[in-house]
Amino acid sequence: MATIDWKARAERISQRSERLAEITDEPGKLTRTLLSPAMAEATQLVDRWMQEAGLQTSTDFIGNLVGRTPDIGREPISQTPGAERRTPNAKRRALLIGSHLDTVRDAGRFDGGLGVVLGIEIADIFRSGFDLPFALMIAGFSDEEGVSFQTAYLGSRAFCGLLRPEDLEVSNREGSLRQLLMGAQTRRAVSSAIALATAEVPQIGTKAEPEFQLLRGTVDRDQLVGYFEIHIEQGPVLEDRNLPVGVVTAIAGQSRFRFNWTGKAAHAGTTPVALRKDALLGAARFALRTEHACSRFPGLVATVGELNVSPNVSNVVPGRVTHSLDVRHQEDSVRAAAIAWLCQEADQIAAERKLGLERLLVQETPSVVCDPDFITRLAAATKSVTGDSFQLPSGAGHDAVIFSQLCPVGMLFVRCRDGLSHHPDEFVQVGDIELALRTAVRFIEGFGRQDQNVVGD
Amino acid sequence: MATIDWKARAERISQRSERLAEITDEPGKLTRTLLSPAMAEATQLVDRWMQEAGLQTSTDFIGNLVGRTPDIGREPISQTPGAERRTPNAKRRALLIGSHLDTVRDAGRFDGGLGVVLGIEIADIFRSGFDLPFALMIAGFSDEEGVSFQTAYLGSRAFCGLLRPEDLEVSNREGSLRQLLMGAQTRRAVSSAIALATAEVPQIGTKAEPEFQLLRGTVDRDQLVGYFEIHIEQGPVLEDRNLPVGVVTAIAGQSRFRFNWTGKAAHAGTTPVALRKDALLGAARFALRTEHACSRFPGLVATVGELNVSPNVSNVVPGRVTHSLDVRHQEDSVRAAAIAWLCQEADQIAAERKLGLERLLVQETPSVVCDPDFITRLAAATKSVTGDSFQLPSGAGHDAVIFSQLCPVGMLFVRCRDGLSHHPDEFVQVGDIELALRTAVRFIEGFGRQDQNVVGD
Repeated sequence: MATIDWKARAERISQRSERLAEITDEPGKLTRTLLSPAMAEATQLVDRWMQEAGLQTSTDFIGNLVGRTPDIGREPISQTPGAERRTPNAKRRALLIGSHLDTVRDAGRFDGGLGVVLGIEIADIFRSGFDLPFALMIAGFSDEEGVSFQTAYLGSRAFCGLLRPEDLEVSNREGSLRQLLMGAQTRRAVSSAIALATAEVPQIGTKAEPEFQLLRGTVDRDQLVGYFEIHIEQGPVLEDRNLPVGVVTAIAGQSRFRFNWTGKAAHAGTTPVALRKDALLGAARFALRTEHACSRFPGLVATVGELNVSPNVSNVVPGRVTHSLDVRHQEDSVRAAAIAWLCQEADQIAAERKLGLERLLVQETPSVVCDPDFITRLAAATKSVTGDSFQLPSGAGHDAVIFSQLCPVGMLFVRCRDGLSHHPDEFVQVGDIELALRTAVRFIEGFGRQDQNVVGD
Repeated sequence: MATIDWKARAERISQRSERLAEITDEPGKLTRTLLSPAMAEATQLVDRWMQEAGLQTSTDFIGNLVGRTPDIGREPISQTPGAERRTPNAKRRALLIGSHLDTVRDAGRFDGGLGVVLGIEIADIFRSGFDLPFALMIAGFSDEEGVSFQTAYLGSRAFCGLLRPEDLEVSNREGSLRQLLMGAQTRRAVSSAIALATAEVPQIGTKAEPEFQLLRGTVDRDQLVGYFEIHIEQGPVLEDRNLPVGVVTAIAGQSRFRFNWTGKAAHAGTTPVALRKDALLGAARFALRTEHACSRFPGLVATVGELNVSPNVSNVVPGRVTHSLDVRHQEDSVRAAAIAWLCQEADQIAAERKLGLERLLVQETPSVVCDPDFITRLAAATKSVTGDSFQLPSGAGHDAVIFSQLCPVGMLFVRCRDGLSHHPDEFVQVGDIELALRTAVRFIEGFGRQDQNVVGD
């Protein structure tokens, strides 16, 4: 295996991330959503990079792009449309390296795209001279952020065959997901602009195969060795500890509540404080208790992020306050205990201040623990490449949440500047990209024979 | 003097208040604003009630309605338009009893209107058989709430000649106050629907008397013995103490601030609490300190009534919070001390939490102290009529603030249910109206000879 120019590869990854970020649905800001024109263009570009890395590519009915290393020593895969996806998958199991190509509105340049571009570089490094015990598949998912339908992970859920019939009925102003997929099918039928496996497009809505094709998914779980994702941290922990990368232990479970505090609107000039029922003061007291909860339950993050006052007039005592509560922890039992404590505190505040209080659980997702073997291997790789080994939970959700239902998952976080994400100023240093690439390659080569060593010690 | 049927008079006042509340610019809710069609209709109705009480009425250029008791023993005042206002005023000094006929949007039925209707009843009681040392003038002001131009007291300021040239330039979506007054003048010229003193309408905008007429006012301060207003409390203090009426000591001074707290927006899942700069928690802590200030400085009312979070999303740590602060006290020195303490607290919170803090003083009005002689007389009258004498400051502003620049002012508060005001459920018991009427009559007769006694002991 030739010597690897890590620096040049890291620079190519950085440049490709920047290039990808130029493709947007909204001029002047980066926005790419499920099956949008910019998504089609971005998918086309990444498809070309995949092919340059020797990958055989295909796109599925929801726009997920997958490239696969050809099986060594075998005949090249038939280029017949529709044969690409199934034939190689039938041959060898694969490690899937993925992230997403969609973005939030006015997004940063590295959230999602970096993981895909890094994956392509990894595939390029392993394309020859190293015999891995599995194929590599690199995936760019078409919807992780959930901007179009406020439903995250549509891409990876469809890919994994985890869409339920009712998921097709989610809708936005332009129609339902089902309608969007049918429209995409039509566009695909009349255009070969994107290299799509048209022969495999399911016949959505026909009587022959009404939804089976949509719901069965793109990948077979038996084909997967595991799922590995490299993603920016989207938080400040690595930067605070001066570390370029970190190994993800788990994706935190999350509970989202809505709190309604009801007091009594009153004239701000004529109502003595002793005769008030100020809903804002109750909510303010509670918001400060959420902060206390985070020190009481180590590792907890609890946030009041959205808060609305009614009537919200400077000379009227607030009669009603509605706010969100977001609670996350990598251990579900700790999250449950923290929520119980917070609810007690809220009840006590409401009683003391004679306020009405309603709580509504809006959403609850359990934590997803990364595969212990993957964690051990990633920790060793990180230690070997950077001299440090640091593990941290992910407070944000990722496609790994979906893949954890199919196979072992592992994640590597890359430091981002100021912990900033979902913002145009989102930034990752090229030096950190280099260390992430070396760590990932070291991690993957660890699955191969010990005497073959790409990274070098 | 004939025996007075207080109960029947109280019931008439209550019914008239209800009748007046049916006249609105917005179907289904009570809203009357400066020079609006509903104001014209309401003014016409009150004008008729005034005339029935023997008052000689006129309306000025901004829509203020004034009725005056005829001078006893003199010839009836000429009915020539324009002669009504000036001629009687030149004869005798008068005690002005007033309140406002405009309302907030979706208002209650007693705020303002009750004081005018009560004034008419008082004038009716004193119309014969009792020789007061002054005439009575009953006024219904056309703009106290300031809905049209967000500038309170336009009616009484114009009446008192306290409008400044720049006040005519305040504007809303429909134009400036100057344009509104010119339009009213035009309407008046072509319509005699309201009994207006057309001959006296100033020639606004003409070169001959460009603004002099607008700025000189309707009343001469030398004509005024004093200003007396009966108003609902708009607060819960009288109800809390189980008292029907209270004597106002002062109208609290007020400072209005805008606070901007700047932290750092961050991902709610990925940012540990120790690494956050949560603007909402700073603002929440401060809001709770305002509550503490009210016990630290007795008599203080401090309110955070309007609060807006940015970006106000459930999974983002608040990066910025903007809120109002309203501080009132009847003693300006206490208000100043409380503000200084609150600013110190805010600075400390900002420093501890590494938040940016900007403060903007939006408005400041000094307190207005009611006339000591009026307070003493009103306290005696209250004691005599109700058996109790309770004094309280007004936390809300009233037209008395304006008249305090011209003459002694006094105010009597009437209990309102639940302390509620500026709300359709605003309510005053007819029994309380009766006691307010008797107290006011006792107060006024106190200026006359001791052997003449209307109320009776």
